[in-house]
Amino acid sequence: MRLCVLGAGAVGASTARLASEYGHTVTAFADSTGAVVDSDGIDVDGALAHKERVGSVGESDPSDALAAEYDALVEATPTTLGDAHPGFEHVEAAFERDKHVVLANKGPVAERYDDVVALAEASAGELRFEATVAGTIPVLSTIEGVGAERVNAVRGVLNGTANFVLSRMSADGLGYEHVLAEAQDLGVAEADPSFDVDGTDAALKGAILANVIHGGGYSLADVDVEGIEDFPGSALEVAAEDGRTVRLIGEVTATGDIRVGPRLVPENDPLAVTGTENIVQLDTEHAGRLNLSGAGAGGPETATAVLADVTRLD
Amino acid sequence: MRLCVLGAGAVGASTARLASEYGHTVTAFADSTGAVVDSDGIDVDGALAHKERVGSVGESDPSDALAAEYDALVEATPTTLGDAHPGFEHVEAAFERDKHVVLANKGPVAERYDDVVALAEASAGELRFEATVAGTIPVLSTIEGVGAERVNAVRGVLNGTANFVLSRMSADGLGYEHVLAEAQDLGVAEADPSFDVDGTDAALKGAILANVIHGGGYSLADVDVEGIEDFPGSALEVAAEDGRTVRLIGEVTATGDIRVGPRLVPENDPLAVTGTENIVQLDTEHAGRLNLSGAGAGGPETATAVLADVTRLD
Repeated sequence: MRLCVLGAGAVGASTARLASEYGHTVTAFADSTGAVVDSDGIDVDGALAHKERVGSVGESDPSDALAAEYDALVEATPTTLGDAHPGFEHVEAAFERDKHVVLANKGPVAERYDDVVALAEASAGELRFEATVAGTIPVLSTIEGVGAERVNAVRGVLNGTANFVLSRMSADGLGYEHVLAEAQDLGVAEADPSFDVDGTDAALKGAILANVIHGGGYSLADVDVEGIEDFPGSALEVAAEDGRTVRLIGEVTATGDIRVGPRLVPENDPLAVTGTENIVQLDTEHAGRLNLSGAGAGGPETATAVLADVTRLD
Repeated sequence: MRLCVLGAGAVGASTARLASEYGHTVTAFADSTGAVVDSDGIDVDGALAHKERVGSVGESDPSDALAAEYDALVEATPTTLGDAHPGFEHVEAAFERDKHVVLANKGPVAERYDDVVALAEASAGELRFEATVAGTIPVLSTIEGVGAERVNAVRGVLNGTANFVLSRMSADGLGYEHVLAEAQDLGVAEADPSFDVDGTDAALKGAILANVIHGGGYSLADVDVEGIEDFPGSALEVAAEDGRTVRLIGEVTATGDIRVGPRLVPENDPLAVTGTENIVQLDTEHAGRLNLSGAGAGGPETATAVLADVTRLD
């Protein structure tokens, strides 16, 4: 399949790099300032070297990529809130040309799900967005197999950075600021980790899950969010005395509420994953509880979810 | 989709019962002694009541079911070893008529995988068999998404009965015979639990996983199998002193070996699932390690895997 990859951050770059291994060809690749287009397949390593040298993947105008020849758009530009600009417009442009759309960008399906679905329904293209929830973990394809209407509730650890911080505070009795600085040194937390530690990132994933399970209607504004910035280390000590620990849990309840916040969980509970690992629990109608865990982030890891989606397009 | 369901044990009966909820119609249903066929859809509850009363789902000849009108065969007759008779012949008959085949019966894909794949390739019908490995857990669809060639190794707890026995022996210091009798009382172990406790059932699943990952060539004879019948309770005590426990682990190694046997695992390891739960770990090329856990057996639970397969057939 011919891919147009928008976004050359960790996920976009890894998707472009791994595409050929999966039997696909990148015919267009763009970041915010440049693009490279070739209907026979671009030189991905060359484009990434170009970015390294001059800051953009190529000399063409970024808009040339969307106008190029391709079968599926991979939208991996940074997640934006509210109108989800410019990701939403990229999705719109692809569907209007009857192309498939595979999202790594959470914005369009967290903030404007109903609009995106309407565009998909009016298009011959198909919509997939496995990579937007819990990185490499096959949450959405599992929900697809179970049948969204038979998933009663979902909960999980949906942000690896917050989980790294909480599990390290808990295991080693270290303070929040200390562990956050360590996470930044390790590259586990970004320079501005606000969306990870204030719960926004997990809340976006909660909104996406709610949209999938309940057929739309949700956005970030519908999520009851509490982060971990002010979580007291002393509460972790109290929890530990009782054989429990604390994780930042995102959940979609059976009644359709979405909540993100620090929750007590037993130390040996499947939810008590450590480090940057994510886990998603699905409570299903006939199949009981399914637990899916693995890497919730990372360029190549998340790219595998993008490429699994591409493979699932007919 | 119109289904022909062969086998009216726990999985076959649950599949027939749940099919309509998934939007499918059962047009033929048979057990070893009788069948009921109706191209407009059979009365599933009536057929199961008939089986309750007289021992078979209907008055027609069992062979009438395979000859009926349907789109997909659901093969849920008991697993048999060696030539996998009569499951294999059912699969053959369906593929020769260009029908899809969804297996719950492990025999054909554990013992005669290459023959089954050859039949599928010569047919317009498609082959799926998610329900044969770890019940409701979406192992095979996850491997499909990752790409079989990018799964380096697989290991897991693949038999719920053996896991119930080992985890109960370990948690409560009880003897093997005592716990096995309890499991039989609870319906967790069959009257003849040989295949569960001697490792055969897990070995069949290991052979199926190896076939999927390595493109065929494996059968039960290729598995190095050790069961739990002679496992000493004292070894569990020694393990516990070291913070570990023992589970019956089935694995397909990176070099293509298949092994089933009791293994030491840390008590808080994801592999240390309790009760009848199953878990599968996939070590992947780009996505790190994925853990998938849930109900490894049970009629409705396993039927959801069958029906997810049916949904995935175009």
